[in-house]
Amino acid sequence: MAMAKLLLLVALVAAAISSSTCTAEVIHALRPVLGSGGQLSHRAGVPCDSWRVAVEAYNKRDWKTVPAECESYVGHYMLGEQYRRDSRVVVDEAIAYAESLKLAGKGKEAWVFDIDETSLSNLPYYATHGFGSRPFNATSFNEYVLKGNAPALPETLRLYKRLISLSIRPVFLTGRTEDQRNITVKNLYYQGYSGWEKLLLKPLGVKVAAIAYKSGARQKLINDAGYVIVGNIGDQWSDILGAPEGARTFKLPDPMYYIG
Amino acid sequence: MAMAKLLLLVALVAAAISSSTCTAEVIHALRPVLGSGGQLSHRAGVPCDSWRVAVEAYNKRDWKTVPAECESYVGHYMLGEQYRRDSRVVVDEAIAYAESLKLAGKGKEAWVFDIDETSLSNLPYYATHGFGSRPFNATSFNEYVLKGNAPALPETLRLYKRLISLSIRPVFLTGRTEDQRNITVKNLYYQGYSGWEKLLLKPLGVKVAAIAYKSGARQKLINDAGYVIVGNIGDQWSDILGAPEGARTFKLPDPMYYIG
Repeated sequence: MAMAKLLLLVALVAAAISSSTCTAEVIHALRPVLGSGGQLSHRAGVPCDSWRVAVEAYNKRDWKTVPAECESYVGHYMLGEQYRRDSRVVVDEAIAYAESLKLAGKGKEAWVFDIDETSLSNLPYYATHGFGSRPFNATSFNEYVLKGNAPALPETLRLYKRLISLSIRPVFLTGRTEDQRNITVKNLYYQGYSGWEKLLLKPLGVKVAAIAYKSGARQKLINDAGYVIVGNIGDQWSDILGAPEGARTFKLPDPMYYIG
Repeated sequence: MAMAKLLLLVALVAAAISSSTCTAEVIHALRPVLGSGGQLSHRAGVPCDSWRVAVEAYNKRDWKTVPAECESYVGHYMLGEQYRRDSRVVVDEAIAYAESLKLAGKGKEAWVFDIDETSLSNLPYYATHGFGSRPFNATSFNEYVLKGNAPALPETLRLYKRLISLSIRPVFLTGRTEDQRNITVKNLYYQGYSGWEKLLLKPLGVKVAAIAYKSGARQKLINDAGYVIVGNIGDQWSDILGAPEGARTFKLPDPMYYIG
């Protein structure tokens, strides 16, 4: 892809993500075709819509890449309105739940946020790397992360701000490693996140599966720091499974990759 | 609705359910319109497709009825090809998992099956009762159950038969009560299920939530009868949550009702 076209695509993806009105028309290089005949949803034996729902409901596990025939489907899903709409319904539910809570008034109620594909979006990266249909490339992905330009997921930012106003403390818990702390802090601030209680990154060299790592970190948050985890939101099941999960968990959509 | 039309609808629903070829055209009173413009999926502020995915991913909990504006959407989903396709992807995954297992050869590997909307379909009932958009009516629903005519869910029956051929023992675990044992046995046999290891119905008068009841029954299956639960499939999250869940769980689609 020529550089000019690449930059245009990245800019358009960023514009689509940062658009604050979900129902407004968004302009992007790939036009969403979901709902306009559905042909894209069923190709070469893989019903991509059913595959996506199976991923969301944790029926599909340990998958390595998006099926090749679903690359276009996933691309249109991610860039179109459906991803935004699906995310909005999840966050509406999370906010309604948070608003229903009776807090103890000691400032110890925490809400755990994952970062990638939850608080920040890497769609500008994935849009130029096959939307998850190609094997994960740590080198090029980390280069993208280190730019610190990942846009906020607007719905998650809305939840984050509402929780702050309710005096529920946001805690970021991410698989990003300690050496990415500075750029992550900068990226989060730049995208409108501020006032978090903790930013928990993975120590370098720790080699445990995400579920074990994140459960352990949540347990520590409770035992050492006395927090009550009232909510937990992520795009991966490994963000929200494993005791202590948090009193209520929320799964944001992510058909692009799987972390076990 | 006139009785003749009602009977026709029931017959057509049964025909649609019992059709053994998933991709064949099915004839039914409500024509599925999903994928033909998507207008049905977003009405009066409730994006019904996002609502359905939120239900499947356990983001929506404790809901009482399908939103009124989604009755038609859910009806078309259930009667159309998408429900069948979504179910097929889940069962394909379950069969691939079962085939990958190394069995100990002692005949103690069990697979837990829920009954309603998992092994047997109550769609003939729900199709004439608003597809879950009206409050649950125990009287009319139990009348339907006692007829013993609920069709098998073809995908689940396919899984069931494959497990039998693999020497994995099916155990039914249902919220149906002991007084419905005879009609349930008859209904299951009539629909092609046979050779199960146990049929566990709820004792009359037991008043615990489904998660607690079913987890307890699974624990008993392990402790008292020495089974290893290698798989567990249901249409409700309360079928598959709560230790011991089983080594692998599968969530079949059900946008019609929620059991907590």
